[in-house]
Amino acid sequence: MARYKLHCFAESGNAYKAALMLNLSSADWQPVWVDFFNQAHKSDEYLQLNSLGEVPVLETEDGNFSQSGVILDHLADRLDCFKGKNEVDKREVLRWLFFDNHKFTSYLATLRFMRHFGKTGETEVVKFLHGRVTGSFSTVENHLQERDFIVGSYPTIADISMCGYLFFLDEAQIDLASYPAIAAWLERIKTLPGWQHPYDLMPRSAVS
Amino acid sequence: MARYKLHCFAESGNAYKAALMLNLSSADWQPVWVDFFNQAHKSDEYLQLNSLGEVPVLETEDGNFSQSGVILDHLADRLDCFKGKNEVDKREVLRWLFFDNHKFTSYLATLRFMRHFGKTGETEVVKFLHGRVTGSFSTVENHLQERDFIVGSYPTIADISMCGYLFFLDEAQIDLASYPAIAAWLERIKTLPGWQHPYDLMPRSAVS
Repeated sequence: MARYKLHCFAESGNAYKAALMLNLSSADWQPVWVDFFNQAHKSDEYLQLNSLGEVPVLETEDGNFSQSGVILDHLADRLDCFKGKNEVDKREVLRWLFFDNHKFTSYLATLRFMRHFGKTGETEVVKFLHGRVTGSFSTVENHLQERDFIVGSYPTIADISMCGYLFFLDEAQIDLASYPAIAAWLERIKTLPGWQHPYDLMPRSAVS
Repeated sequence: MARYKLHCFAESGNAYKAALMLNLSSADWQPVWVDFFNQAHKSDEYLQLNSLGEVPVLETEDGNFSQSGVILDHLADRLDCFKGKNEVDKREVLRWLFFDNHKFTSYLATLRFMRHFGKTGETEVVKFLHGRVTGSFSTVENHLQERDFIVGSYPTIADISMCGYLFFLDEAQIDLASYPAIAAWLERIKTLPGWQHPYDLMPRSAVS
């Protein structure tokens, strides 16, 4: 049995953050498919794993972890990779993990869900989310003007977290033409040994 | 001069998280008012403090910190209070800090801003945000059924973060009648020595 079991599905960018971290770290892991679109994350069995019903959950020898930021923080520490090299960098990593959760993934994930899976059309809510997404993209574009990675010259879990939904941009209908620094940064991430697209790294659902 | 200078304004729940932590910890601190409604956070001077232009910023002997979650994490560590007492509790604290940023403060702060300051009326976007807020409130209500505080029997920075916007619920037009466990938890927070309402703890803007 693998050291790590990741409860996930390929359409989840939050699950991808954990899966990508495991793969980039050459960890011994296996995916366990969650049938999200048929509400498997609301089953009693799944709620035993995570009372909030969120995906992903990482099963480890140290117990079960949920919330992608917590999983990344734990794995960086345990596997001793992709973490900040000093106190200042560690603080920056944490800052961008919060930024991702607060202003980046939060809106982008919902926008992509509505446009791609919900097929809601361009409602007022979709337009609002699109505006929030482009605002946060401008922040990151500006930040990456002078940096190869989010905290500087080397990749950390901040990059792994923030790129979580960025390989679904076609589904979110966001064009990177206006964000060349983000596009270049994503290309750098794709060259890291072990990188794979979310749809190649985790089991897909029939719906997608 | 005070040991800590907090760049803040009383209408900001994110600034309140830091101000409340400082006050509950009996830290030597002073507020420095940011004229947010007149765009002071976009001035060159302010962007020197925080390139993202976000409020709050905490000036300390260890440098400047921004992002409320980072500030709370730093202060808990430095002042040795309101942190998790063991590894499991520390992980839970971090998990709820992320939850707050991802699903709780993010929507509530925007909803309150639109309803109270933007006076947008009940647009589709406001209705969407209201739905997200009540969804996350149900999650927290359920979580607090069997706990006095977010990670268990004692208050941590997870409580301090998550209550950040909850003393503005009248402005957000959210009624706690459906959330008795949240209401009781807020009353417990109000009994902590040093607790003050955000409007009494930081300088207010003329607009409010």
